[in-house]
Amino acid sequence: NIWASLTVNETVEIQSWLESPDRGLNLTQSDLAELTDNFIYLIEVYQPPKAAAVAYLNSPSTIPPPDKYARVTVHYGSVPVIKDYLVGPLPISSKTSLEELKDIYHRDEIPYHARGFVRGTELTPLAGKYMPLLAEATQELFGGVALGLPNDTLIAGASAPFSFDGSFRRLWVSWRRNIPGPWLHPINFFHYVDVSGTDPSQWSLLKIVYNHQVFPSVESFMDAFHNGTLKRLPDRPDQRDTQDLSWSARHRIGEPRDLDHLPGPRSVSFAGLRFRVDRTLQYVSWMGWGLYLGFNRDMGLSLWDIRFKNERLVYELAPQEALAQYAGNDPMQATTAWLDRFFGMGQAVRDMIPGYDCPYEAVYLPATTHSPLGSISRDRAICIFEQDSGRPISRHTGYMDGEFGSIRGYVLTIRSISTVGNYDYLFDYMFHFDGTIEVRLSASGYLQGGYWEPLQAGYGSQIRDTSMGSLHDHVINYKVDLDVAGLSNSLLSTTTHVEHVEHPWLDEDWGTEVIQQKINREIIENEDGALLNWPENFQGGYAFVNSEEKNSWGNPRGYAIHPGYSPIRNTVVGSKRLLNNANWARYNLAVSKRKETEPTSSSMWNMNLPGDPVVDFHKFFDGENITQEDLVAWVNVGMHHLPQAEDVPNTRTNMAASSFFLTPLNYFDTDVSLESINAILLRAP
Amino acid sequence: NIWASLTVNETVEIQSWLESPDRGLNLTQSDLAELTDNFIYLIEVYQPPKAAAVAYLNSPSTIPPPDKYARVTVHYGSVPVIKDYLVGPLPISSKTSLEELKDIYHRDEIPYHARGFVRGTELTPLAGKYMPLLAEATQELFGGVALGLPNDTLIAGASAPFSFDGSFRRLWVSWRRNIPGPWLHPINFFHYVDVSGTDPSQWSLLKIVYNHQVFPSVESFMDAFHNGTLKRLPDRPDQRDTQDLSWSARHRIGEPRDLDHLPGPRSVSFAGLRFRVDRTLQYVSWMGWGLYLGFNRDMGLSLWDIRFKNERLVYELAPQEALAQYAGNDPMQATTAWLDRFFGMGQAVRDMIPGYDCPYEAVYLPATTHSPLGSISRDRAICIFEQDSGRPISRHTGYMDGEFGSIRGYVLTIRSISTVGNYDYLFDYMFHFDGTIEVRLSASGYLQGGYWEPLQAGYGSQIRDTSMGSLHDHVINYKVDLDVAGLSNSLLSTTTHVEHVEHPWLDEDWGTEVIQQKINREIIENEDGALLNWPENFQGGYAFVNSEEKNSWGNPRGYAIHPGYSPIRNTVVGSKRLLNNANWARYNLAVSKRKETEPTSSSMWNMNLPGDPVVDFHKFFDGENITQEDLVAWVNVGMHHLPQAEDVPNTRTNMAASSFFLTPLNYFDTDVSLESINAILLRAP
Ligand SMILES: [Ca+2]
Ligand SMILES: [Ca+2]
Ligand SMILES: [Ca+2]
Ligand SMILES: [Ca+2]
Ligand SMILES: [Cu+2]
Ligand SMILES: [Cu+2]
Repeated sequence: NIWASLTVNETVEIQSWLESPDRGLNLTQSDLAELTDNFIYLIEVYQPPKAAAVAYLNSPSTIPPPDKYARVTVHYGSVPVIKDYLVGPLPISSKTSLEELKDIYHRDEIPYHARGFVRGTELTPLAGKYMPLLAEATQELFGGVALGLPNDTLIAGASAPFSFDGSFRRLWVSWRRNIPGPWLHPINFFHYVDVSGTDPSQWSLLKIVYNHQVFPSVESFMDAFHNGTLKRLPDRPDQRDTQDLSWSARHRIGEPRDLDHLPGPRSVSFAGLRFRVDRTLQYVSWMGWGLYLGFNRDMGLSLWDIRFKNERLVYELAPQEALAQYAGNDPMQATTAWLDRFFGMGQAVRDMIPGYDCPYEAVYLPATTHSPLGSISRDRAICIFEQDSGRPISRHTGYMDGEFGSIRGYVLTIRSISTVGNYDYLFDYMFHFDGTIEVRLSASGYLQGGYWEPLQAGYGSQIRDTSMGSLHDHVINYKVDLDVAGLSNSLLSTTTHVEHVEHPWLDEDWGTEVIQQKINREIIENEDGALLNWPENFQGGYAFVNSEEKNSWGNPRGYAIHPGYSPIRNTVVGSKRLLNNANWARYNLAVSKRKETEPTSSSMWNMNLPGDPVVDFHKFFDGENITQEDLVAWVNVGMHHLPQAEDVPNTRTNMAASSFFLTPLNYFDTDVSLESINAILLRAP
Repeated sequence: NIWASLTVNETVEIQSWLESPDRGLNLTQSDLAELTDNFIYLIEVYQPPKAAAVAYLNSPSTIPPPDKYARVTVHYGSVPVIKDYLVGPLPISSKTSLEELKDIYHRDEIPYHARGFVRGTELTPLAGKYMPLLAEATQELFGGVALGLPNDTLIAGASAPFSFDGSFRRLWVSWRRNIPGPWLHPINFFHYVDVSGTDPSQWSLLKIVYNHQVFPSVESFMDAFHNGTLKRLPDRPDQRDTQDLSWSARHRIGEPRDLDHLPGPRSVSFAGLRFRVDRTLQYVSWMGWGLYLGFNRDMGLSLWDIRFKNERLVYELAPQEALAQYAGNDPMQATTAWLDRFFGMGQAVRDMIPGYDCPYEAVYLPATTHSPLGSISRDRAICIFEQDSGRPISRHTGYMDGEFGSIRGYVLTIRSISTVGNYDYLFDYMFHFDGTIEVRLSASGYLQGGYWEPLQAGYGSQIRDTSMGSLHDHVINYKVDLDVAGLSNSLLSTTTHVEHVEHPWLDEDWGTEVIQQKINREIIENEDGALLNWPENFQGGYAFVNSEEKNSWGNPRGYAIHPGYSPIRNTVVGSKRLLNNANWARYNLAVSKRKETEPTSSSMWNMNLPGDPVVDFHKFFDGENITQEDLVAWVNVGMHHLPQAEDVPNTRTNMAASSFFLTPLNYFDTDVSLESINAILLRAP
């Protein structure tokens, strides 16, 4: 598996090599480093060039695998700046060198203010400075305090982005009750803090906002609190001692349903599993499908060299970024635009709960990511299972010989779940017998709640006495490097329109004109035309075709990218907090010429650089010809999340789901699910 | 079950009563009747008035069930005209009367030319008159003949509609090879026939079309054939004797897939089924859900009095009509607009194949429909099964007490499959633990194929040497009589838009203006505003709410109608062949005030009366107020079907699927799936 993650041993070896004085990097051990120190933030595999990879895959016995490289991110607190390197070839030898990784990024340097956290507690000392000074007020106004003690009754949450272009690092802190599901218990108390630079002693509180009143300092707030000029929120049931706040936990409630004391139906493969998993290679195969698994810190699970019936179909299928952009009438919601790659959706992968997060028969695979505090390994990071889809993939009741039959529908699912703070993302890749893949994302977990008051009416829904769910959009981008019948592909745009046409065989009874549909098929020749939305009423669609490879009936072999559940794009365009760092989210999908210098549509630093992103997706679209080239589709799923009472305690995956399909389009000569043995053909009675 | 179908005995009793000379209807036994005779076409239950039904349901011990009525359709060949009657109360007694059913229809009479078939062979004698005269030509041009013999090598297919307003009955006959899957073997030979009136001896051939040449008679066609002026189609591989035409059957092909010799995973309820089915009552319950089943000739399975957690949620959920509108450059495809209710999608229900069409554990229920040739009973017309959905309905990995857990996802599916000629429709109703219903339609079966030639390029795709799949739209309409927290409901339209807003707490670092989303909630007050499409980018949606019933957080209790897979509407508007008989298909959904006089959006005669339909959907929308009224939603699913090679032999259900959700929207105070016992709550390690 040439895409496999580094082992812990490989990581340790690279780290030692980097820490060697010969490198001259003046590194401090990551877990001991101060902000002013230089330390390694990330070490992970860097995927090989496709040409070398494909050459090897095509002739593994004669062509050696591509050289292995690692990507290394170093925080240079001493400057301060962030640098990304390539280290290789691996394993470490006299040929190994260190080279700055620049050609995949769109600005000269990665500003220090865009950096990731080493620990979640970086802001604690700052809050510790001023929250005790506010304790008298927070106790009276909210019934809670944060004194920096284990029994603190308030805890902090933060907004993002932290910067516009890297010139500062500032964020809004929103205080919440320190109880299970704190995201649903904001108290309506906000602090704007400046955490620029490498000297935490210089960090400062810029503003306090309470009940739409803005104060420049602790003193001015406390003055208003004492002298009676503070306009207070109305009486709050949630801070009475008698109030039961356990509604934000997942404890069972209510009467059990009829027969729910019985275990539910369970999928069993009585003759054994029908899929194969090579744990060493991280290779999965099922019913003509085969693929390798990759895994990284930023986005977790990725799939490589997906083949169907012995032909490569997708070179790379990998999530790129997850956006969540909020709205509201308070400092937190109105300024939040998360890009979860910052937090590391791979690093945030969780052990799945057998029998609950995946069906009983699932096979689990581990994943390891590197962090500044050491390697993080999860034994059940990935699960794989086959299920009866519950309906035949094709069937017909007929009377002539061979017409009457049914083919069972089965689906193989590969899943990984990442919990990024409040939210749980379920990444599913679902393989069908006919050559179709459904790429589905479902969400669960906690809302990022707001404090409910009538002034928030347009920005969400009240979900408890003083809590609301805040309006937001989720958009998740996938890289889909389809290689349809080879590397040379073109982008087929199909639309249908209504025509008025006269036919010679028509007569006065119906009139001689017919109004009907007609298909227009067009190859989009240039990247500039390949920033795409689904057409009105879904009248048409998009496909990768190889114009030079036809099926037996003269149609170019193709695979369609077909919308599934919730085929949406981002609602808000032009927000400064997402100005140019997530431009992929403006479209339902986009297609660009594949480049080694454009491996991904985002970066972990993009969140904090909306004005000047490290990866600027629009730069991929520079007028290049995309006919019979190696193309990549960047496809979005997502959800307009208008929260509601039923999001409490956690969002339901059945409604918070979005997907797209990759499905054969004249790729074959016929439906290949006819190959199934798990099918029946009857003689009509 | 006050919606139950009539038993065969009840039907026989009604028939005897109608045939009694006392009624004076001068009826002939249906299976012996000529077109000039009067005979009974249909006897089936007529659903009771909702007020009487609800009164009874609310107090079954004190209020009697509503009187039972039958609807009876009589073909008066002696006039000719069609009449629809109500017969009741039932059982037959001295109080039983016969009354013409007019108030649910929008024209004074039902024209005889719109009538349904008694047998599929009605046109055979006409073809038998002229096809032998053409045999010399068909043998040479197509390699086949239709002499009216059992070994005929050509068979006929027909187009619809047959009439515009009832003033004539004409149709295009398209000839196909008489081999398995004939729909995929059209030979490009078309006859326009007039079959008006009740005297088949007067029926006549109006035109012959071959290879874009139009002939007014058999003689003129044969003259051209003999004198060399006929422009012939190019040489056709499909009519060579050596050609294997079995590709249109469902025989297994190709190499078996790895491990496919094993049985696939199978869902087993080891402690017994968790749903209950009362076969006598045709009542189904599962996990807080309960509902009655109905079944009729026109559209098959319907669901009644759907309750969740003891509250009525849907009074009636029933498919109404299935449209398939074609396009092409030949007389057949360019003039076809099927409305399958004409054929009787209930009458066309098929026995499902256990273990293939439904999973092994499914429970089957029978259904009986009446036809002029007798009762049709199917033992396995309906199946019911529970399945693991394959993902938790909600989950979170958390660290505080009560945050970390997962609830298994289960779905109960109620299914029925109708095969209307070439096409198979899978009607699925899928019930979720949280109160959500997904209404899903999947299609399989055969394409209505066309003869492939380059002139057809804009109208489909070549799928074999001389066969094509023709472009068409499917739209299927459902009646959804939601009763959300009572009968008084309002239609909530939610949209989101982008706003530019200044906030006092913002500063020069980001600018003082925020660009963000905002929700607009509006009650649509009048039916005129309730012909609805999904908003651009799905920014918003529609829900039924009871404005007077709030959940604990002050939001009106509601249920949203949420798009699922393929949320489309009909592409073509204005076609004469679908002018006013399927106006529901122009929208994604529509909401009208519920009326006893508007029980359904279509009728079996609508197909043949596009210019003057028996039920005109637009007439429901007459400016009535729809705030806090009993409302009905008419919701569409569908698919733009651009055929492709993979539709052969049969369309795949995974891609040919469309759905919508009914899902709680602040209906509860919280997610009620928390009530599940099949859940786990963990302490963080
Ligand atoms: Ca480019
Ligand atoms: Ca490619
Ligand atoms: Ca009305
Ligand atoms: Ca209603
Ligand atoms: Cu959300
Ligand atoms: Cu179709």
